[in-house]
Amino acid sequence: MAADDGPVEQADWVFLADCRARLAFDLLSHTWSSVVLWALRGAPQRPGDLRARIGGISAKVLTETLRRLEYNGLVERRSYPEVPPRVEYGLTPLGRTLLPALEWLGAWGFRHGDEVLAAQDRAQD
Amino acid sequence: MAADDGPVEQADWVFLADCRARLAFDLLSHTWSSVVLWALRGAPQRPGDLRARIGGISAKVLTETLRRLEYNGLVERRSYPEVPPRVEYGLTPLGRTLLPALEWLGAWGFRHGDEVLAAQDRAQD
Repeated sequence: MAADDGPVEQADWVFLADCRARLAFDLLSHTWSSVVLWALRGAPQRPGDLRARIGGISAKVLTETLRRLEYNGLVERRSYPEVPPRVEYGLTPLGRTLLPALEWLGAWGFRHGDEVLAAQDRAQD
Repeated sequence: MAADDGPVEQADWVFLADCRARLAFDLLSHTWSSVVLWALRGAPQRPGDLRARIGGISAKVLTETLRRLEYNGLVERRSYPEVPPRVEYGLTPLGRTLLPALEWLGAWGFRHGDEVLAAQDRAQD
């Protein structure tokens, strides 16, 4: 995904308010959405395991995040009629298509994190 | 940015709460951040022109978004001592490094928007 991968200057789509280009921005506009999608990139997981793995997310917020991702078709819920009942969440094929962007953004944070923190320091002076 | 661009399974970084990998998720966790960054990818612009170009954003929210992006070093404000004074906002070199991700996410919305809308319809049945 180098800067010259595509015709950036031609892509003027974002400015139409009803434009689908904004869709992914909306889907990822909660910090936890990206984190939860990323945490689900392997095998489906039970909510408790997922919460322990992510860390710092409340059960309530995790549930809300999973429901929102499920509503948008990125995550699917599977329940198994066992005793006790078992519920797992996993990525759908559609959710999986977002993983390359999440990986890219994660790598960006490592590469440019110092620059962001330096800018914040300067702004506070 | 194909799915096989990098070792996705090895990248377990997101789960550390203080991890820089979450930084970009946070920076883009407001819908307008992505839209404003994208709108600034060309020449620096005056706030009024920017607002007209984006559409659907209030002056107050645009100002807040620009200040947050400036605070994080992604956007810079330039004022010119003219009469009347002229103020323009443009991307910093750091802000420019995020453009490939924004373009990718915009293209994703076009490619997969129908699938998201279909999932939302199913969820409402």
